[in-house]
Amino acid sequence: MTEMHSPYLMFLGDVQDQLGAKTAQGIVDWRPEWCIGQLKLEGCVADLGLQNVSIEEAVAAGAKTMIIGIVNSGGFLPDHWISVIVDALDAGMDIASGLHIRLGDLPEIKEAATRNNASLFDVRHPTHAIATGKGNKRSGKRLLAVGTDCSVGKMYTTLAIEKEMRSRGMKADFRATGQTGIFIAKSGISIDAVVADFISGAVEELSPENDPDHWDIIEGQGSLFHPSFAGVSLGLLHGAQADALVLCHEPTRGHMRGLPHQPLPDLQECMDLNLTTAKLTNPAAEFVGLSVNTSGLTDEDGAAYLKKLEDEFNLPCTDPFRNGTANIVDNLS
Amino acid sequence: MTEMHSPYLMFLGDVQDQLGAKTAQGIVDWRPEWCIGQLKLEGCVADLGLQNVSIEEAVAAGAKTMIIGIVNSGGFLPDHWISVIVDALDAGMDIASGLHIRLGDLPEIKEAATRNNASLFDVRHPTHAIATGKGNKRSGKRLLAVGTDCSVGKMYTTLAIEKEMRSRGMKADFRATGQTGIFIAKSGISIDAVVADFISGAVEELSPENDPDHWDIIEGQGSLFHPSFAGVSLGLLHGAQADALVLCHEPTRGHMRGLPHQPLPDLQECMDLNLTTAKLTNPAAEFVGLSVNTSGLTDEDGAAYLKKLEDEFNLPCTDPFRNGTANIVDNLS
Repeated sequence: MTEMHSPYLMFLGDVQDQLGAKTAQGIVDWRPEWCIGQLKLEGCVADLGLQNVSIEEAVAAGAKTMIIGIVNSGGFLPDHWISVIVDALDAGMDIASGLHIRLGDLPEIKEAATRNNASLFDVRHPTHAIATGKGNKRSGKRLLAVGTDCSVGKMYTTLAIEKEMRSRGMKADFRATGQTGIFIAKSGISIDAVVADFISGAVEELSPENDPDHWDIIEGQGSLFHPSFAGVSLGLLHGAQADALVLCHEPTRGHMRGLPHQPLPDLQECMDLNLTTAKLTNPAAEFVGLSVNTSGLTDEDGAAYLKKLEDEFNLPCTDPFRNGTANIVDNLS
Repeated sequence: MTEMHSPYLMFLGDVQDQLGAKTAQGIVDWRPEWCIGQLKLEGCVADLGLQNVSIEEAVAAGAKTMIIGIVNSGGFLPDHWISVIVDALDAGMDIASGLHIRLGDLPEIKEAATRNNASLFDVRHPTHAIATGKGNKRSGKRLLAVGTDCSVGKMYTTLAIEKEMRSRGMKADFRATGQTGIFIAKSGISIDAVVADFISGAVEELSPENDPDHWDIIEGQGSLFHPSFAGVSLGLLHGAQADALVLCHEPTRGHMRGLPHQPLPDLQECMDLNLTTAKLTNPAAEFVGLSVNTSGLTDEDGAAYLKKLEDEFNLPCTDPFRNGTANIVDNLS
């Protein structure tokens, strides 16, 4: 994927609740300096806490790309958004979308992009042929977040680790494997959308050879223990060739996400299976820490839970939102 | 996928070697009664040992579908095949293809299919939206072939087991997950071609609820130890919810297929990982036998190798080509 250009104008359409703008909110949380304003249509309920701007104002302020980082009911693109997107293209911006529909499949949008020599980014869709994974050792170092379940903070953890490493002057790049991460990194591959044969190959492409002291901090997806998505997680693990693994966990969850009948794995069992399978492509793989989303616990209970895990696994444990990731980065060799 | 209709006319085009007709040969090996003849163009080198027939002769003999079960250099469909395919459609046959290109993407073929109300089957391409896997327990029994590597006889093994079970009057259906298997079963899903998020869901669809004494004999793909394709294998394992696993192996192979740097797994290690991960969706999963392709060994060495494995694993071991699969079927409960 070609890199997107910042700054961004955040398009909110007429989204009916704040949850529909979750992706856009993630971009604002992690890259506020790129988000110069929001564009809402009549009836929009979501708000990102940004200045409301018109397309003209956004372009005047330097916006290079209009981001459609919202979930619309049904995943389609409503007809009345098309003219707004065409206006943005005519005003000189690129468009990046996280919708299921491809922007280029809509003739008016495609024509406007061609006319303005502008780029259309559909972050859910791989844009080119991907090779199968090879498993050859690549130079540089890699950290991968793995999880007991989906949606337990893998993106948050890896972004926080990248931030911590960069603040120390270390060479580190977050590598995005999901749509929100791709908007934040300006590039990446939506790994669950590639054809099954190419999962590990996509991650090899995403994290190519690099300087010996450079770290790729790779966003994980799913869980080896999720009956729906474990294949994605295993291909990602093999392609990542991770030197360092971080286990992400949410301690108050009663069952695997979306599957009320499926219990969460035991943490030790989860780490064992990840480590066993990671060693196929990197025999030196090891866990360097645990990252826990303790937002469902009180400050006191959260701290006690982290302390308990530290004692149990003899590894640094943190809630990256509450405590940052310094203890995990300290543990990288 | 709608079921294909037999009998088949086997189209060989002008394939330049016998290996290019490997898929077609697999169909003839397993379903000779469906293959009423072959159609070769000038310059074709491959031969299936069938009678050479014209389209008219094939239709007169009852052919319902023309099968393009060949690999063409580059995977495309040469222009001079198009008129032959159109003739076959006009003569009243459906067309089924294992090529990478979709038949319906070629306007002349699509128009001829519409004109004749005929079906086009692209066995490499899923034809409909697949749901994500759920992992809910399904009635009926399931056997899955897993492997130490790709191309170690998983399709052969499962077809041989289906044949053995049916000869005993047992309810058994081979479930195809690859292109050759799909031609043989008349339906199936090319599992390595589905989008990553839907691997286990595709297998759940392929092997739905059934009678308590019915066995689905599910074709495996890849290996949990293959760095390119392990994600496919894990999703398949979880979706299959196998009660019975058969390990397939080729003992003379020096490295994982296509990856000279990658050693084959130890058999025990391979069985352990398959069993551990299979239990996520079926805690009762167990190995019921080993199937070994001993074609690279003498009769004597092959028999000795099977005996050695039987003693080591205390499970029935067979080369299904040489010895059938009765000992494995005897071991099903």
